[in-house]
Amino acid sequence: MVRVTMKDPKIWKTFVSSVTALIEEAAFTFSPDGVRMKAMDPSKISMVDFELSPDAFDEFKVKERVVAGVKLTEFERALSRMKSKDQLTLEVDTEKNRLNLIFKGASTRKLGIPLLSAEEEEFPEPKLNFAAKVTLQASVLKDGLKDAEMVAENVRLNADKNSFSILAESDRGTSELVLSKGDEGLVGLDVSEPATAIYSVRYLIDMVGGTSPSDQVTLKFSTDLPLEIDFGVANGRFRFLLAPRVET
Amino acid sequence: MVRVTMKDPKIWKTFVSSVTALIEEAAFTFSPDGVRMKAMDPSKISMVDFELSPDAFDEFKVKERVVAGVKLTEFERALSRMKSKDQLTLEVDTEKNRLNLIFKGASTRKLGIPLLSAEEEEFPEPKLNFAAKVTLQASVLKDGLKDAEMVAENVRLNADKNSFSILAESDRGTSELVLSKGDEGLVGLDVSEPATAIYSVRYLIDMVGGTSPSDQVTLKFSTDLPLEIDFGVANGRFRFLLAPRVET
Amino acid sequence: MVRVTMKDPKIWKTFVSSVTALIEEAAFTFSPDGVRMKAMDPSKISMVDFELSPDAFDEFKVKERVVAGVKLTEFERALSRMKSKDQLTLEVDTEKNRLNLIFKGASTRKLGIPLLSAEEEEFPEPKLNFAAKVTLQASVLKDGLKDAEMVAENVRLNADKNSFSILAESDRGTSELVLSKGDEGLVGLDVSEPATAIYSVRYLIDMVGGTSPSDQVTLKFSTDLPLEIDFGVANGRFRFLLAPRVET
Repeated sequence: MVRVTMKDPKIWKTFVSSVTALIEEAAFTFSPDGVRMKAMDPSKISMVDFELSPDAFDEFKVKERVVAGVKLTEFERALSRMKSKDQLTLEVDTEKNRLNLIFKGASTRKLGIPLLSAEEEEFPEPKLNFAAKVTLQASVLKDGLKDAEMVAENVRLNADKNSFSILAESDRGTSELVLSKGDEGLVGLDVSEPATAIYSVRYLIDMVGGTSPSDQVTLKFSTDLPLEIDFGVANGRFRFLLAPRVET
Repeated sequence: MVRVTMKDPKIWKTFVSSVTALIEEAAFTFSPDGVRMKAMDPSKISMVDFELSPDAFDEFKVKERVVAGVKLTEFERALSRMKSKDQLTLEVDTEKNRLNLIFKGASTRKLGIPLLSAEEEEFPEPKLNFAAKVTLQASVLKDGLKDAEMVAENVRLNADKNSFSILAESDRGTSELVLSKGDEGLVGLDVSEPATAIYSVRYLIDMVGGTSPSDQVTLKFSTDLPLEIDFGVANGRFRFLLAPRVET
Repeated sequence: MVRVTMKDPKIWKTFVSSVTALIEEAAFTFSPDGVRMKAMDPSKISMVDFELSPDAFDEFKVKERVVAGVKLTEFERALSRMKSKDQLTLEVDTEKNRLNLIFKGASTRKLGIPLLSAEEEEFPEPKLNFAAKVTLQASVLKDGLKDAEMVAENVRLNADKNSFSILAESDRGTSELVLSKGDEGLVGLDVSEPATAIYSVRYLIDMVGGTSPSDQVTLKFSTDLPLEIDFGVANGRFRFLLAPRVET
């Protein structure tokens, strides 16, 4: 039986907040190398890749590879019962066919959710070279995306040597976020050639939905090519790929 | 005219939060001995008994027995208008046929709700000897019940000399809260013989709905017999009886 | 192009909160004398008059008179994107036919909403002499109105030399707020002859909706005549007129 205890249980709340809107079921692969989940959304517009190394855990009892599939809404509901100071242990009980979440605080509580028959999926992942790499505060990125959401369904990202911008426009109005080198909200800007592309606002907002305001998010993109979103967590990584929209 | 001013107005918010879901109308009996309300829910699954001694009041002008019936939703709506620092006076105005709630703070405000024609009910109360008596923090009990609510409609309570547990199970999943002697959340455990019984989660959650996280709640039960829930308030008492469910 | 930067951006949130429920479109007149908006609601029961002098602005670039009409719900949605520490600049771009809201904080964000073709309206305003002038804390007034709202659609205001009261009554119950000279919530009371009149609770609640609890609101009225509500803001003024209801 797989049994792991998290150093920082909050990672899982970030995970489900970022992923629940994109995919319905997730297959977590527990192996001596860590925990990994990789999936595409049904429309194949986006891919999510989540991994935690054994260092992310206080206790990591995984002797062999086990794939645990769960419905994400059920996982999220169970996680929502965790109190902020609880210790979180995950247990894959293949005999009873359950993923157990054990919360240890003023009392010890255990919630079990059914395991789905699931297999780890393999994806042919595109080899991408990105023209622009932008690192910014999660709160600033969210603000720019939520501004855009009021106005349009798609958002244009632009990056050049000196600035990064998020633009949206429709007959409902316009929105514009500009970050120039030196601005507080812009942590890093590394552009080999100017890049501009359009992406779905909804997907972007979902993907960064679980970040805390002070987290840093890295966007990598090239003109009219897929976007990669990264945000590191202690001893782990969230990565999303998102296909561009092409103007008609 | 009956006129009483509370020492701790919050008691009434606790009262309506705990009772509104169970019964529609409440008949409060004001007498020189204090205030009392006793009622059964329409399905006769539960009974509520609420009493406050005259010591719970700063001012207690009750010369004769008066029964004041009100619709609980109306009482709750009026109470919701009380500010946290307001002084609360209740006035039974039998001439105008109104229960007045007087809030004294930065201004003096008076809300009147219609009195219903009501009579104090008498109940033949079962004489119960309880095998188990468990006292625990309200917040811990609520957590265990809310975990269970995600999974099932009924919950099994178990108590033996050393531990108390709340269990629920369905094809949606499982939940389990275990408190052992010495655990922070378990204040007292007094078991003459092991007890196990099933009760409605919904009723239990409603009954403890008005408690504050640091309140202490006492559960008394025996195998397949009614449960008594008690929580003391300054100079008063809330008591609930809840019929068991029997597995089919 | 008109371009103004606010000293206190919060004024605009107060404005839209107070006015959105009353009127759909607002025509702001920007002139070297300041900014003004005056409108009647469609039913002609109420009038709103809002003005800010150039001193309310850190930067005030207005060379000629420009009228900027906007849909208030769109203005409110855009304002809702402003963070508490953002600096707010308004820009009337008559070429692109847009009102721009520029938020300057950790990043610079710009939201544009479409301009409507609008003209400043002129109103024949009634010349009113008020028998009673009452100044009170916004929070106390709101409490009295919200109490009344639970009970009835109309509210009676009474003022005499010594006290001010708000009364409501229906078969759902009664509500009463009384403020006497010396009460904390009553800041000023100046009554030349006793006044009593009935007004719509809904309108009154909407009008004071944007005030902060510590704001002071002045009510002026006479028996069965229109009510004027005033609340000063730094370098500006909100004024509402509300027609009385006459008992049938």
